[in-house]
Amino acid sequence: MPVGTLGTVKAVSPDELRDLGANMVLGNTYHLFLRPGSDRVERLGGLHSFMRWDGPLLTDSGGFQVFSLAAIREIHEEGVVFRSHIDGSSHEFTPERVMEIQRELGADVAMAFDHCPPGDCERSEIVEANERTLRWLERCRRRFGELEQRDGRTDQAMFPVLQGGTHVDLRRQHVRQFKELGDWVGWGIGGLSVGEKKSGMLDVLEALHGEIPTDRPRYLMGVGYPCDLIEAVSRGCDMFDCVAPTRNARHGTAWTASEGQVNLKGARFRDDTDPIDPDCDCYACTRFDRAYVRHLVAAGELLGMRLVSIHNLRFLVRLGELAREHILLGDFPSWSRDWLERYHGTGV
Amino acid sequence: MPVGTLGTVKAVSPDELRDLGANMVLGNTYHLFLRPGSDRVERLGGLHSFMRWDGPLLTDSGGFQVFSLAAIREIHEEGVVFRSHIDGSSHEFTPERVMEIQRELGADVAMAFDHCPPGDCERSEIVEANERTLRWLERCRRRFGELEQRDGRTDQAMFPVLQGGTHVDLRRQHVRQFKELGDWVGWGIGGLSVGEKKSGMLDVLEALHGEIPTDRPRYLMGVGYPCDLIEAVSRGCDMFDCVAPTRNARHGTAWTASEGQVNLKGARFRDDTDPIDPDCDCYACTRFDRAYVRHLVAAGELLGMRLVSIHNLRFLVRLGELAREHILLGDFPSWSRDWLERYHGTGV
Repeated sequence: MPVGTLGTVKAVSPDELRDLGANMVLGNTYHLFLRPGSDRVERLGGLHSFMRWDGPLLTDSGGFQVFSLAAIREIHEEGVVFRSHIDGSSHEFTPERVMEIQRELGADVAMAFDHCPPGDCERSEIVEANERTLRWLERCRRRFGELEQRDGRTDQAMFPVLQGGTHVDLRRQHVRQFKELGDWVGWGIGGLSVGEKKSGMLDVLEALHGEIPTDRPRYLMGVGYPCDLIEAVSRGCDMFDCVAPTRNARHGTAWTASEGQVNLKGARFRDDTDPIDPDCDCYACTRFDRAYVRHLVAAGELLGMRLVSIHNLRFLVRLGELAREHILLGDFPSWSRDWLERYHGTGV
Repeated sequence: MPVGTLGTVKAVSPDELRDLGANMVLGNTYHLFLRPGSDRVERLGGLHSFMRWDGPLLTDSGGFQVFSLAAIREIHEEGVVFRSHIDGSSHEFTPERVMEIQRELGADVAMAFDHCPPGDCERSEIVEANERTLRWLERCRRRFGELEQRDGRTDQAMFPVLQGGTHVDLRRQHVRQFKELGDWVGWGIGGLSVGEKKSGMLDVLEALHGEIPTDRPRYLMGVGYPCDLIEAVSRGCDMFDCVAPTRNARHGTAWTASEGQVNLKGARFRDDTDPIDPDCDCYACTRFDRAYVRHLVAAGELLGMRLVSIHNLRFLVRLGELAREHILLGDFPSWSRDWLERYHGTGV
């Protein structure tokens, strides 16, 4: 899912998103709540209409941003009181409020409000965050049900968010506790890719593989880079979001099939008349060459940021398409091994 | 002509330029000479190919930038020695070199190298600049002819650039001196819109009207805003370039038919579901509303800069189309008077 933090995937239009094959876009509850305001988005017809994206939309719970971006005033059982990173204004997110906000935004998939502890914290803190996340999940589900009743509409889905850091036992326990609460249409895996070792993340995904029902989509939140995507798909994950494709693009970094990650500002691209990635079918690669894109990104031109963003997004979307194809063909294990070997061979 | 300073009209793709009806794009000789280098652009197939713009291209002479942007080391009869505003490197522009650079870039229209004095300088300085511009024009023409012979191609045009500040007599004299040198396929009018009073510019255009052959396009350089365009067309001008549509757009300022110039960051647009300009047929106006564009520009989002740039460019291109229509209909005087009255009525 391309990340549309503020109701726009940075530098890319909704028509370009459709053209590059994006199936679903992510919006950030925290950011949209502050700007332009979820009540305003609702008055304007919801986020789909606001940003002119008629495909599926998922909004995160705001939990990750509240715990990482805002100046937190207080975390208590009721919720989190925080100050906006924009103007310092004070707000409170409770599980109930977060469900209401995502209803206002009109997300197709809403995420439950979770307590996301820092990546390097003590086990005891993680235990506490897991327990709170569980209690908050019950409150989210209750309010979610009330909103469905109020509106007479069941077209929004809600995913719970698993926590537990890299503690495999805590992760397993969390899944089981969630399952005891009932069935879920999809599962969010939070609290990973927050600075832990890569092996820690993969161990967790493997442990969760036997626990989460296989007929439900698993959304690995905040991941990732091309290799992470393949590694996580290998371990059963279905959905992803990450700012890397667009953020890296704005700094001139592109992913390519044959050369891995390249920084297009490099002098070696000055006279290179190949596309960013000769294997790619995106607008940037079918229309422009590296010499021009190199010139644009070196000069800080906005078109350069756009072209590399479109390319990186298409690169990941296509990687997902290829992974799906090979799963259906039955040769995903060998295909993904070859793919990773080739990609790592580029020095990434 | 949308301004593509560095081989890209900021925030806009060549396909979007074509879609908004741009007929011709301007590239900046000074900027492209420094980055990515006109020799490199030539090796890469010329500016059309480099930036993927297959419509007409005009390049300026670099004179305006050398005299306004670079750190000048020395102006002498041979040319101008200057330091790059990017890295301080030293370069020399002579009339001959400037013709060669524009040949390397592959412009359809090249501009002669002129001495453009500051807007507030003494008459004696302007006289001197006019005389030098005349001598440089002869040298430009000679080198231009040599290059045509060398390449066996006559598909590039060269326009001379008139100077003379707001001194109507010096302007008239300059035209006559140029005419004595021969015929020109088009005429550049430089040294206006550089801080002088608006009436001074209009007086010059009126004086030039009787002097420049009417069957040759007149290019008013560096102009302008919507009203300037109408006022100048009224006085016989045919071609324009200005960074205002795209530069203003990046700050959220849009031109509209019924409300004049508006800053879309204004709080009054927060819930406005009209397009930027209800009378406009551009991509931004047919696809998005003010509430969304307001949100984008207020948050500094790149898509906002792109949408307003597309709109402002389309606004000027369409204004040119309308002017042409009314000239052909024979009612341009009354149409333009009404248009200006209505536009000024918005408080612009």
